[in-house]
Amino acid sequence: MTGLDDKAAILLLSGGLDSATVGAIARAEGYHLHALSFRYGQRHAAELAAATRVAAHLGITEHRTAEIDLRLFGGSALTDDIPVPKGRDAEAMASAIPSTYVPARNTVFLAYALAYAEVLPARHIFIGVNAVDFSGYPDCRPDFIAAFETMANLATRLGREGAARIEIHTPLIHLTKAEIIRRGVAFGVDYALTVSCYDPDERGRACGACDACILRREGFSAAGIADPTIYRTP
Amino acid sequence: MTGLDDKAAILLLSGGLDSATVGAIARAEGYHLHALSFRYGQRHAAELAAATRVAAHLGITEHRTAEIDLRLFGGSALTDDIPVPKGRDAEAMASAIPSTYVPARNTVFLAYALAYAEVLPARHIFIGVNAVDFSGYPDCRPDFIAAFETMANLATRLGREGAARIEIHTPLIHLTKAEIIRRGVAFGVDYALTVSCYDPDERGRACGACDACILRREGFSAAGIADPTIYRTP
Repeated sequence: MTGLDDKAAILLLSGGLDSATVGAIARAEGYHLHALSFRYGQRHAAELAAATRVAAHLGITEHRTAEIDLRLFGGSALTDDIPVPKGRDAEAMASAIPSTYVPARNTVFLAYALAYAEVLPARHIFIGVNAVDFSGYPDCRPDFIAAFETMANLATRLGREGAARIEIHTPLIHLTKAEIIRRGVAFGVDYALTVSCYDPDERGRACGACDACILRREGFSAAGIADPTIYRTP
Repeated sequence: MTGLDDKAAILLLSGGLDSATVGAIARAEGYHLHALSFRYGQRHAAELAAATRVAAHLGITEHRTAEIDLRLFGGSALTDDIPVPKGRDAEAMASAIPSTYVPARNTVFLAYALAYAEVLPARHIFIGVNAVDFSGYPDCRPDFIAAFETMANLATRLGREGAARIEIHTPLIHLTKAEIIRRGVAFGVDYALTVSCYDPDERGRACGACDACILRREGFSAAGIADPTIYRTP
């Protein structure tokens, strides 16, 4: 397609540990990244401040934040007044789709990334989904990603007319949290810039007890790497 | 699935002729409709006023409007300052994807509908896409809809756990504009409530010259039904 930079890519950037690692991997592979974040009624605006820091850290010059309105439908502890579950072990996390699941979230995020990709144009989209430590989420699994990619190539001018196949890249999908952290450290990611907590305070300090904090803390421990996270409870 | 009303359905409602017809068809088939509209930086807020009128006309009690931000990426005459093309014949319309195409629009709309469906829950989504008179849009074709449906069933709690297959219904997809209008009239649709124009004035009066106006006017003519549209140029 005329005007297509074959290394141009959209990076879905939440400000968490995973998307920061994905950005570092994509950068090392020579992609030219355009970052996309969302303000989606989530409680944790601290995440967006982290996304801005991570984008600068990765040397990304174009970073856009879309305002979306998933609160309109409700149904998640991340957007509603449902309490964030705390202190759960791995078995409890894996036993059911958690209340922090945002309905159709990755479908909505990838749909926006696709719109952005089509306008640039870019044929690559990077997303930090993981099917190992977050197996409770249906939209983090490889078959979902493959189905989205198929749909994306039928949905767009780029896929239809451009003879340029849209690709959804998920470099973390089969890694454990410890493997993600080791890889990120190898690529120079400063995890002190990132926020994973589902319930941080206004300064971005982590609660230490939600599923995301527990997985993150266990990941640093298993990787044998010092955890740079700032917790509000010592 | 517990709590699933098997006739609950999401209706993507733009306020135009097609979605009003889809709503009337779905209502006649016994579906319980929840309407979803979008404010997406389009020039024509008149469309949203029409959506509200049509929802009332169809007896829909739940009608939500999501604020979305496709202007963030630009790339369309419907959201940008690119002029809306006027006075084109059918051949010119069909020759290429038009500048009024909004990038990944139906992907984004259906993603929101899927989030709404998952929260209700509902397993049916109705959308007024049409592959006959708008063949220039890649995301109006049957293969795109089928791929979205496959993806939707992998993306959601409902599709994964509920043993309830999510279905995307496109009752207009193979109809001409004249057939759509005849069907709508048979189901009692008052098309005077609808706005199709890409460039209406602030009172919702149609320009009469954009692709949507031309297709609509030709549709009424071919159907042999008086056109109730209010045009600002006589």
